[in-house]
Amino acid sequence: MKIAVDAMGGDYAPDEIVKGVELARDAYPDLEFLLYGQADKVQPLLQDTTRITLKPAEEVIAMGDEPVRAVRRKKHSSIVLAATAVKEGEADAFFSAGNTGAVLTAGLLIVGRIKGIDRPGLTTTLPVLRKPDQSSFVMLDVGANADTKPFNVVQYAIMGQYYAQSVMHVAHPRIGLLNNGTEADKGDKAHRAIHDTLAGMDDIHFVGNVESRELLNGAADVVVTDGFTGNATLKAIEGTALSMLKLIKGEIMSGGLGGKLGASMLRPVFHRVRDAMDYSQYGGAVLLGLKAPVVKTHGSTKAETVKNTMGQIHELLATDSSRQMINYFTDHAEQMAALKETLK
Amino acid sequence: MKIAVDAMGGDYAPDEIVKGVELARDAYPDLEFLLYGQADKVQPLLQDTTRITLKPAEEVIAMGDEPVRAVRRKKHSSIVLAATAVKEGEADAFFSAGNTGAVLTAGLLIVGRIKGIDRPGLTTTLPVLRKPDQSSFVMLDVGANADTKPFNVVQYAIMGQYYAQSVMHVAHPRIGLLNNGTEADKGDKAHRAIHDTLAGMDDIHFVGNVESRELLNGAADVVVTDGFTGNATLKAIEGTALSMLKLIKGEIMSGGLGGKLGASMLRPVFHRVRDAMDYSQYGGAVLLGLKAPVVKTHGSTKAETVKNTMGQIHELLATDSSRQMINYFTDHAEQMAALKETLK
Repeated sequence: MKIAVDAMGGDYAPDEIVKGVELARDAYPDLEFLLYGQADKVQPLLQDTTRITLKPAEEVIAMGDEPVRAVRRKKHSSIVLAATAVKEGEADAFFSAGNTGAVLTAGLLIVGRIKGIDRPGLTTTLPVLRKPDQSSFVMLDVGANADTKPFNVVQYAIMGQYYAQSVMHVAHPRIGLLNNGTEADKGDKAHRAIHDTLAGMDDIHFVGNVESRELLNGAADVVVTDGFTGNATLKAIEGTALSMLKLIKGEIMSGGLGGKLGASMLRPVFHRVRDAMDYSQYGGAVLLGLKAPVVKTHGSTKAETVKNTMGQIHELLATDSSRQMINYFTDHAEQMAALKETLK
Repeated sequence: MKIAVDAMGGDYAPDEIVKGVELARDAYPDLEFLLYGQADKVQPLLQDTTRITLKPAEEVIAMGDEPVRAVRRKKHSSIVLAATAVKEGEADAFFSAGNTGAVLTAGLLIVGRIKGIDRPGLTTTLPVLRKPDQSSFVMLDVGANADTKPFNVVQYAIMGQYYAQSVMHVAHPRIGLLNNGTEADKGDKAHRAIHDTLAGMDDIHFVGNVESRELLNGAADVVVTDGFTGNATLKAIEGTALSMLKLIKGEIMSGGLGGKLGASMLRPVFHRVRDAMDYSQYGGAVLLGLKAPVVKTHGSTKAETVKNTMGQIHELLATDSSRQMINYFTDHAEQMAALKETLK
């Protein structure tokens, strides 16, 4: 199993990317890596080239570059060359911590969509807090598309199911539709149509509407939503978690308790809280619906997250997740075409 | 200034509602109350009838009643009679902690929309954490409409501005559009159109797109959004805040620090955190865009929240907020009609 890696993307590239790839190489004996980047920068960082091949890519797509234009013009960039390696079958998956828009664009334009899937969905794993039998859930689309049709959301349920089976090892993941109430008739016309379609599908375990209030409590294993609402919900969760952590820290410190306890005693508590909320432990965001895994981590990615993400890609490849999706959408081509007509 | 109160709505009605009205009466010498409820239940609770008139209402709309049907059929319910008092000019505002859907329906059908406003927006005040010069912001629509048009969101900016001026005492509130990025061209076609329209309006202080990640940091004083996204965002903030509080409490207690500190020392810290996040201190949710203030608090409302909410209504009445909105939409009738054509 071979992963094409953009060594130049992210705030700490190429150092931390290369370090992370070496950690992953040591952890997963069946993984090989094609490392795309500027040879003079990447070569000196490589300690041991076992199962790692350096692939020179002299251009770099910067964080601020306009995505579509950059992917079209910078043919020798690490992002374009790594994605092309997947397209041409030289690699099985594509990893980057670089320019999000460019990674998604390269995924769409170069790796390509699975036949029958109109809109790939960006998929994130988030923590479930204090529930004994569930530690995480996945949500899609969290922002690949600002303009989503009901048909796309129905497809997200199928895609999310395969993903949760591969990565979370849940045989029959509970699929929920993000809505403004749990009753079946909640939401606008589009959400009622999505709800009824999902409720009528035999091959998924649909648990109905879920509210964003209950996500961290584990209301579902897979939460499907349009990219606009998913993006707002994800960012509201992130922002509130950060703000609460700061607020509680500040209250303990300013309340005189900090002095009594000593910062050294509180530090491990806050580290554990941060770890519980840190979803980079689950790997990166995956653009589901492409012919091969395309995985993007945060710009601030360091070696440990690179390693975790390679573990996540390892699961996707070992379970042949993309092949399963391709087969599903081939086998259900007629059903999907009919759905697309009804759910415009 | 006279407020029509639904004494029967809420989990602790009528006891806590009556108690709260008496507190508010003592706190605001220029407020009078019409208290709608079942006489045999409300009468015995009233300690002092100064500026409080009991208005018998023998029917009750229950929490589980279907809103539109209940408002149409239960003509002698406290909700319908209180809203009717506002419509007929006997009272200046309507308060309830009862069935949300029924309160919104009574507001729309009985109190009535301001001429020129298509869709009233449910407006909530939320805390801003750890920012010296801003303690709260308001957001609308948080769920009155599941199906919002760009034109409605533009009107929310005007309505939110008047509200923030009256209740938050900010002369030129910063108005932000909730979007999936801060750049002007973010979002779908609808959001780009809303952005450009707001940016071109002289009579508001528009600060551009805001992301849900930055709301609790005080990115704006007034955040406008469609009712579906607003609802998902509000509930994500609520749910995450609750989950984080539980998580951190649990980590401190299980980490052995709880024992060392003693629960009695930590309790005030968590109380302060809960108070900071408790938006019932700012009063209830207001259905803005009606001819008079219609204010709804949570079902779990107790006397203190009733009192705070009467303070909020007091501000709205003292600044003649509804009249200002009515005047604005009368004066700008042509401009609004033109906007409605462009922003379908």
